[in-house]
Amino acid sequence: MSRKLHLNAFLMGVGHHEAAWRHPRTDPLRLTDVRHFQNLAQIAERGRLDSVFFADGLALQGDVRHNALGGLEPLTLLSALAAVTDHVGLIATVSTTYNEPFHVARRFASLDHISGGRAGWNIVTSAGEAEAHNFGIERPAHRDRYERAAEFLEVATRLWDSWEDDAVVGDRDAGIYADIAKIHQVDHAGAHFRVKGPLNIQRPPQGRPLLVQAGSSDDGRDFAARHAEAVFTAQQTLEEGQEFYADIKARAARYGRPPENVVILPGISPILGGTEREALRLEKELEDLIIPAYGVAQLSNILGVDLSGHPLDEPLPHVPVETEGQQSRLKLVTDLARREGLSLRELIARLAGGRGHRVLAGTPEQIADQIQEWFENGAADGFNIMPPVLPSGLEDFVDHVVPELQARGLFRHEYEGRTLRENYGLPRPASRYASGPAGEIAGGNAPENADGTVAVAS
Amino acid sequence: MSRKLHLNAFLMGVGHHEAAWRHPRTDPLRLTDVRHFQNLAQIAERGRLDSVFFADGLALQGDVRHNALGGLEPLTLLSALAAVTDHVGLIATVSTTYNEPFHVARRFASLDHISGGRAGWNIVTSAGEAEAHNFGIERPAHRDRYERAAEFLEVATRLWDSWEDDAVVGDRDAGIYADIAKIHQVDHAGAHFRVKGPLNIQRPPQGRPLLVQAGSSDDGRDFAARHAEAVFTAQQTLEEGQEFYADIKARAARYGRPPENVVILPGISPILGGTEREALRLEKELEDLIIPAYGVAQLSNILGVDLSGHPLDEPLPHVPVETEGQQSRLKLVTDLARREGLSLRELIARLAGGRGHRVLAGTPEQIADQIQEWFENGAADGFNIMPPVLPSGLEDFVDHVVPELQARGLFRHEYEGRTLRENYGLPRPASRYASGPAGEIAGGNAPENADGTVAVAS
Repeated sequence: MSRKLHLNAFLMGVGHHEAAWRHPRTDPLRLTDVRHFQNLAQIAERGRLDSVFFADGLALQGDVRHNALGGLEPLTLLSALAAVTDHVGLIATVSTTYNEPFHVARRFASLDHISGGRAGWNIVTSAGEAEAHNFGIERPAHRDRYERAAEFLEVATRLWDSWEDDAVVGDRDAGIYADIAKIHQVDHAGAHFRVKGPLNIQRPPQGRPLLVQAGSSDDGRDFAARHAEAVFTAQQTLEEGQEFYADIKARAARYGRPPENVVILPGISPILGGTEREALRLEKELEDLIIPAYGVAQLSNILGVDLSGHPLDEPLPHVPVETEGQQSRLKLVTDLARREGLSLRELIARLAGGRGHRVLAGTPEQIADQIQEWFENGAADGFNIMPPVLPSGLEDFVDHVVPELQARGLFRHEYEGRTLRENYGLPRPASRYASGPAGEIAGGNAPENADGTVAVAS
Repeated sequence: MSRKLHLNAFLMGVGHHEAAWRHPRTDPLRLTDVRHFQNLAQIAERGRLDSVFFADGLALQGDVRHNALGGLEPLTLLSALAAVTDHVGLIATVSTTYNEPFHVARRFASLDHISGGRAGWNIVTSAGEAEAHNFGIERPAHRDRYERAAEFLEVATRLWDSWEDDAVVGDRDAGIYADIAKIHQVDHAGAHFRVKGPLNIQRPPQGRPLLVQAGSSDDGRDFAARHAEAVFTAQQTLEEGQEFYADIKARAARYGRPPENVVILPGISPILGGTEREALRLEKELEDLIIPAYGVAQLSNILGVDLSGHPLDEPLPHVPVETEGQQSRLKLVTDLARREGLSLRELIARLAGGRGHRVLAGTPEQIADQIQEWFENGAADGFNIMPPVLPSGLEDFVDHVVPELQARGLFRHEYEGRTLRENYGLPRPASRYASGPAGEIAGGNAPENADGTVAVAS
């Protein structure tokens, strides 16, 4: 069986292009309309896409005067999408910096049950200052955030494992609901968390939700190689894509993981037309709708410098490299500007389309060529598709690019499995407690001497 | 127009009776099956019930060996129910002790948008020790929990108000998505929380979700009178019900609130039969399925004393009144045992049915009589219906009690409104910022000098 692409639809409001909300093919008032997103998930499923994904932030970031910002909380949204779909995976960003492992483990376990095994978690550490100010703290340092994330994930996986797969018995006659030898306290006590467990929901269908990650800094790559099963990334050139791909796979191997268990998904924003001219016209229409002041403010924010006085048609000024915050994003943007000698206006237009991801305008065949080139040359296991306008950009991709990829033998005609893991070709993890000695259960009515000693093979 | 009852379906796993999972009319393996709960929500909607409600706890509490415990996280579940219903309100318990106001405000705002204005929040302060141990802390004191809850609610309401109703403009031609003079920082700095805001989602359809509360301690009653719009309560006798009803309404009036804006809903668990004999048979069947060891452990937990050596057929021993924890629950149970001179075995059987709520076995007419008596004699504005077995207990109520209540002119034939508030006859709160001077918006790209000074009429 030949290797197949994996495709994730990264859904953002009414489209990834910064000016999408102003384009006649979108309705800017649908940001809180669940039917809009239900329709998108159904389109993705019609196209046999592996999954849909919603990014997230914990503050109103960006200038809402000039852009359609603020929407539904992703996890709450995803269970409403689970109710109207059967196959497509459901991935949401949740921060490890501003949450507690018990809540997050429980909510993803719930979504995984609700969706029949289609939940995925994009793990982020939340770099922004505005987010910190909604939770009463100052922005934590880059490394601290990653340390907390690693411990968070350790606790979360223990909680998902805390009920072995066959813990629920349901024997009415004997009066035995669960075999408590198969439900385990997690008894975690670390630098950031103390959590007794067990989780208060049985093990989810996938064992654990699919773990996704997107940081491209050194800490981010290391975290991805250790923990992530799918990686979203922004790479502009084939060479960059190959470097990133090889690096993550090699790092994973060093951690003793099979490299094929980390699925690398670079982001692309395909601007589609029946002809190349039509695609370029749509691109131009969107570019003409950009509000320069908004783009300057966005870029100032990414780079950590105030560009508001800088002439739009001159090159980007020198930008000092920050030591904290979204390091890899900053480098990506400055590299892009230098490499292509872009003016501030041109850089803004490029970022407006994909915020540092590749924007490809062309026919379905041209887009398929690009996908195939990266897929067959060690730069991608699939792609994170970022439609510039929604729903039409996703419809165009599903109706025109997907059939082209299928005709080339690169993409599935039918879903391979029932769960997100099965469709991504990833194994279902066993509970770490499954082969260990029996533990005692914690809980309000457990006898005081149930000390919950559990031998853990981690 | 005559005063009408309000009815909430309190849904608990496969039924409220402790032994429900062992009864042939239930399937104990459906605790994580979303279709089970979707079916229940649709049955409630068929019966024109105001709302469905899911209680919650943040630990596996009780002995899962002998009871069907552990299920879906309520808020995640509710959006999956929103997707398959149109009218019924959706209420979930969320703790103020183990959450952050920004997350909670955002998730309820999201659910309210997703459901078209049907979200309700049952505010709890989480008394249990097992819950504390899943969040790395010791159990906070009763009064501290209520102080935190009050501040939590203050922040949450500010966040819901932070976007005025008409903040979103969506003017594509002018490039104006939102009128930022109508989006406000909340700039809260208190003993428990510092939150800058605004929320990152526009104001929900109901303005704020319906606020529900259930504590019956003095702190709990005070909290309910100040903040709650619906109150769940466990009252055993008409006199107790009248006392509680009058007390909450009087306290609300003292806080300047119209008493009719606090809807009092005592809990009842109706065990229904076509004849009284049939109802009593079902009650007996459930009683025979009780596992005494489980009941003793549950009761020991409520009372804070170890009853495991106590003879089942003797009265309850003397129980010292705790100063912390679930005070009102303890008093309710000991009062019940004294008043009716119950043995330990009898008390366990009574609690198994409704955990301190009224259990009524009878025909639909008999149940309707009880409902009518309380409703017309100053003890209730409606009821919190706790079916002993699910789905059949809810089906029986909807198919037989509801028509009886409708025939007596006590209950609606059609939903009055579109939102949960409209069906409960409660006003939609205005944003506290709506008539104030224009504020500046916070956010990643707001100029540094946007200091967000906002005059607040609280």
